[in-house]
Amino acid sequence: MTQLELQGRAAKKASRQLAVAGTALKNRALEAIAKALMAHEEEILAANAEDVAAAQANGMIASMVDRLTLDHARIRAMASGVREVAALPDPVGEVVHTTVRPNGLRIGKRRVPLGVIGIIYESRPNVTVDAAVLCLKSGNAVILRGGKEAFASNRVLVELMQSALASVELPADTVSLVMDTTRESATALINLTEYLDVLIPRGGRGLIRSVAANARVPVIRTGEGICHVYVDEMADLQMACEIAFNAKCSRPSVCNAMECLLVHRGVAQQFLPMFRPFLRRKKVEIRGDEETAMILGSSVVPATAEDWDTEYGDYILAVKVVGSLEEAIAFCNRHGTGHSEAIVTDSYSAAQRFLDEVDAAAVYVNASTRFTDGGEFGLGAEIGISTQKMHARGPMGLEELTSFKYVIYGDGQVR
Amino acid sequence: MTQLELQGRAAKKASRQLAVAGTALKNRALEAIAKALMAHEEEILAANAEDVAAAQANGMIASMVDRLTLDHARIRAMASGVREVAALPDPVGEVVHTTVRPNGLRIGKRRVPLGVIGIIYESRPNVTVDAAVLCLKSGNAVILRGGKEAFASNRVLVELMQSALASVELPADTVSLVMDTTRESATALINLTEYLDVLIPRGGRGLIRSVAANARVPVIRTGEGICHVYVDEMADLQMACEIAFNAKCSRPSVCNAMECLLVHRGVAQQFLPMFRPFLRRKKVEIRGDEETAMILGSSVVPATAEDWDTEYGDYILAVKVVGSLEEAIAFCNRHGTGHSEAIVTDSYSAAQRFLDEVDAAAVYVNASTRFTDGGEFGLGAEIGISTQKMHARGPMGLEELTSFKYVIYGDGQVR
Repeated sequence: MTQLELQGRAAKKASRQLAVAGTALKNRALEAIAKALMAHEEEILAANAEDVAAAQANGMIASMVDRLTLDHARIRAMASGVREVAALPDPVGEVVHTTVRPNGLRIGKRRVPLGVIGIIYESRPNVTVDAAVLCLKSGNAVILRGGKEAFASNRVLVELMQSALASVELPADTVSLVMDTTRESATALINLTEYLDVLIPRGGRGLIRSVAANARVPVIRTGEGICHVYVDEMADLQMACEIAFNAKCSRPSVCNAMECLLVHRGVAQQFLPMFRPFLRRKKVEIRGDEETAMILGSSVVPATAEDWDTEYGDYILAVKVVGSLEEAIAFCNRHGTGHSEAIVTDSYSAAQRFLDEVDAAAVYVNASTRFTDGGEFGLGAEIGISTQKMHARGPMGLEELTSFKYVIYGDGQVR
Repeated sequence: MTQLELQGRAAKKASRQLAVAGTALKNRALEAIAKALMAHEEEILAANAEDVAAAQANGMIASMVDRLTLDHARIRAMASGVREVAALPDPVGEVVHTTVRPNGLRIGKRRVPLGVIGIIYESRPNVTVDAAVLCLKSGNAVILRGGKEAFASNRVLVELMQSALASVELPADTVSLVMDTTRESATALINLTEYLDVLIPRGGRGLIRSVAANARVPVIRTGEGICHVYVDEMADLQMACEIAFNAKCSRPSVCNAMECLLVHRGVAQQFLPMFRPFLRRKKVEIRGDEETAMILGSSVVPATAEDWDTEYGDYILAVKVVGSLEEAIAFCNRHGTGHSEAIVTDSYSAAQRFLDEVDAAAVYVNASTRFTDGGEFGLGAEIGISTQKMHARGPMGLEELTSFKYVIYGDGQVR
């Protein structure tokens, strides 16, 4: 057996114990983790400083160094995040449905943990704690495989979580870190079918696509977001400006930000000049189709076919004029990633058709795409936003980290 | 584009239309299909006779020829199966949950079809109709890839369904058949990620394992069943005989049949001789561990390690004596396929521990494993029994062929 297989086997064993651990015990573990993070701040910061120094020496770009860096405030935020997860309702054990059959069998559908969850992510040490505690609260064991640039930080964080688990007599193997940060270890993890029940990649598009394309373990794809806002012929144009500005500019790097604005031909002449000052405030580059360029003039960069399929994650916006609601819907379905799509309209029938026909995790009428988020949806916390249809779609909270089993009570029934 | 890619694209397009088709329209299509099956019985039988003749000429074994063969009664059963599906409630459109957020956003979680479902199966023409109509009723398009020995039958059946769809103005591409029955076409289908939302293999263990191991499209594994009945120390032994006999002998070829009987050491001396006459009635071969052989004598075939991991699908039963409830649970979790597991006991605590700790789709107290079935569970019909934890677990009815989308009603909210 390889080191990773041994780790998988230990996680599987831990998961069986965790599946029957009560809420109070899991919450004690979470509280112990929160305390350990605060008590061992200096160790965490020292390990993180090593990672940051090495990353800088290797020429890591500033925005990535920022994501890698921990400080007092970030560690405190981690700890309070852990306590927030402790405060969430435990989904495990709930019987969502019971049937009594004519033969007297009582069949209950009971929520149970998935088992062992693999998380592959980039060099963000906060994900280490965040993902681990969501898995723990939902009764799952987790195998973490973080980016190699955060290895020293991750190792300390995982050791602290393991000690905290042991202190309340839960198995330390509930949370473990892949100690080998080579590409081979990632390949081995995504093929660890015997021990992993599901794999969740968290990070950029490249990581997610590569994991989804190569994994033999079932994957939940998260966080790819080419989101559209469609300004309908019947839109309140002032509202459309506010929504489109918010969707593009409130945080352009995240997956629920708008990448492409669609504008109905009937209002384009009026709307686009109204909207331009909003974009100028943030120096947003406009990549427009011909009609957009005709209306807004030479500041528009001509869009290429590639622009319609690009997640910029930046102050860049693709803009296209469309002739009809149907064209807008078809465009969203063709170029979107199934994440979040919005229409701005006061037409009841246009709103209904958009909701019905756009195929995405979250479809909005008269609101910004930026709301697609576990916290905003009231799930309390999220491990990612699923853009697939199987198992979970949209923001994934604790419930989405569970499965079901049927428990059947008989008194001698045979068939 | 390959032929299959064109077919995938057409199915995707059809699926968008079907997703918004109302229940009445889908039911009209189902009724038209049922009528067409009855009206074109002679054509179906003629095509099927070709398949059967070729299969016999190629030396297909009798039990497989039987599964391939259609007759008047079987076609009538198909048609009435279609009408039963029409009578089931339509899961699509149901809003399972609505939240109103503090900012006034109304967030509904609406049930929607998965999209395009691929079904890979063996030479059973009844699966062609059965799977297609379940997909249709749940608003999904389907691409069928049946065994080559049933190709002539499948082609006629799919053509009839396509005409029926067209007659009610639903797209004929809602149901289509992969026309190439080579191994290459199966490989292409399981990698058709751009158009298939999910793939459900139906058939023997070899088919399912090979699809699950090689597919890049998300797969739902179904129908692998190594199921156990555990006769606890506190069992009513008469009830245990009835349940174990039913679980093994009522239909040994199906996935919810028992393959292995576990008996607590404290009752083995009494139970095994009581149970033997039941097994003799059906000439069941016993493959037992040493203790079983000591109790039952030389008629017991010594079990090898392989027996604990074999799905016989036949009148063969593995038998093992265990020392404790814990050992029984661990054995089920180690050797079971996560399908159906049963305990016979009158101990409250043993029953609860078995229900909690056994990791399977269906866990029974004092009832036969044979009840794991969509009809028996009250789902009305099933497309298979999932043995995985992601998306669906246990019998899969219409709801399990759906996903969700969030529909969000705002009045100008920005974040």
